[in-house]
Amino acid sequence: MLERSRKQTRGPLVVIGGGEDKEGERVILREVAKLLDGGRLVVATVASHEPEGYFEAYRRAFSELGVTDLVELYVKDRAETLDPDKLRALEGAAGVFFSGGDQLRISSQIGDTPVEQRVREIHERGGVIAGTSAGASAMSETMLVKGTSGESHRIGDLHMAPGLGFMRDAIIDQHFAERGRFGRILGAVAHNPRELGIGIDEDTALVVTGDRFEVIGSGCAYVVDGAAVTHSNIAEARPERALSMYDVRLHVLSSGDAFDLARRRPAVVPDVRVSHAIEAQAALGPDPSRTGS
Amino acid sequence: MLERSRKQTRGPLVVIGGGEDKEGERVILREVAKLLDGGRLVVATVASHEPEGYFEAYRRAFSELGVTDLVELYVKDRAETLDPDKLRALEGAAGVFFSGGDQLRISSQIGDTPVEQRVREIHERGGVIAGTSAGASAMSETMLVKGTSGESHRIGDLHMAPGLGFMRDAIIDQHFAERGRFGRILGAVAHNPRELGIGIDEDTALVVTGDRFEVIGSGCAYVVDGAAVTHSNIAEARPERALSMYDVRLHVLSSGDAFDLARRRPAVVPDVRVSHAIEAQAALGPDPSRTGS
Repeated sequence: MLERSRKQTRGPLVVIGGGEDKEGERVILREVAKLLDGGRLVVATVASHEPEGYFEAYRRAFSELGVTDLVELYVKDRAETLDPDKLRALEGAAGVFFSGGDQLRISSQIGDTPVEQRVREIHERGGVIAGTSAGASAMSETMLVKGTSGESHRIGDLHMAPGLGFMRDAIIDQHFAERGRFGRILGAVAHNPRELGIGIDEDTALVVTGDRFEVIGSGCAYVVDGAAVTHSNIAEARPERALSMYDVRLHVLSSGDAFDLARRRPAVVPDVRVSHAIEAQAALGPDPSRTGS
Repeated sequence: MLERSRKQTRGPLVVIGGGEDKEGERVILREVAKLLDGGRLVVATVASHEPEGYFEAYRRAFSELGVTDLVELYVKDRAETLDPDKLRALEGAAGVFFSGGDQLRISSQIGDTPVEQRVREIHERGGVIAGTSAGASAMSETMLVKGTSGESHRIGDLHMAPGLGFMRDAIIDQHFAERGRFGRILGAVAHNPRELGIGIDEDTALVVTGDRFEVIGSGCAYVVDGAAVTHSNIAEARPERALSMYDVRLHVLSSGDAFDLARRRPAVVPDVRVSHAIEAQAALGPDPSRTGS
């Protein structure tokens, strides 16, 4: 840990789309284990109303990966965040792993409490912050709380709330392709294209270090960039109206791909102008109907 | 019909994402009725292995909309496409409506037969060609036959085949948001970005006239444009590999939106350069970390 914190201030984030493999290759949990480097992991099950079973599943999954110093952190309600025993669990931790459940439980129960403060300190000193499913959503500055899956976005059909904000300028969604959540992330981005929408499939994760992330796992991560949007109807009054939004830029990323969050570009592509140039060329392409002025 | 065919050669297409309202407002079927203008409609139930019931449902739905001259066309197998009775059903028709089922039944049973020839003649003379669900997919030049819904695209996990080709340079997918088919339309577009991918929600349709379409109905139509793509891994050998594709342009359209297929642009937005300019401006925006060179 000391080695790492000398090189960079903040620790890495591991943002997981839910349903990470816990029995096979465990690519994602193995990455968490590697980043912990033998240190203690706190499994925060606070997102769950009924946390029983979560901790045991992670204890089993992590034990063969060399992570043996595991403690559970659960708070039933906000009052418990002052409990010295709860705070003691976070002492000396090399990382915190937020398990699944309801992201609103994470923000409403530990937001602006001593527990959140300790987690933030661990991150500032170089510790790993990981989160899966609800734990991934809660990383967002403005997080998606509720929105219909499996259909296109209706204006007004989306609830957002302030998240923990470890991941700046991005709204995270999870179980992404599996639950058909394209509609709701597009709706979220339409609200303010400053935020990137990042949808993460199950058994897939972003490993974020500084302004860059890499994708690991078996599925895709979708980056929805609204910076070039020319039109959207999101501010229209009728809540049942379906979304309209032109010129969204979308990147489909999978294992091995990296993304530069500051430049809002896949890390290996030098410039957005390359994309513009290809598009301009295509418009002049072989189809004679497109060459006429 | 004569009035219309003097003004334009080919008739309109109505490309429906499945599940169109048959009992309430019937916005889509009403549009079909309007385009028929009192003429005969042939309901082609050929996509179905068991066509019973389809025709009755459309007869009921259309009767209150003033479409009373309705005939069914079903061919059990290719041999039947030579049957004079089958061909007679198409005589004098103002339009043909392909119902749902399996798009591969449409192409394999009527492709390159006298039945298809008659349908094409009706279209060339200004008749309406409508299709819902499988009937929408079959409109494509290269049509999506099979591909997993509800997950991200895996290379190799997609079957395409030559469709009827009424809709040029586009691959149509249907039941789009409802069945989580973003993954497979992105995969299809990656194969050859010349083709636009158009995903249509249930109870939503494109009304295509010439090089332009308008969206009607309650959901969204998604236009996936790969012309500016800078990278894709679709030609990689491993079939279980998840898709990677950078710089996809996406338009989310809903009722009232129009799209220019020749320019590959929403009809009301003058130029792709507007989108580029907004994006360039956003990159120079208020975030000081992005202004440094």
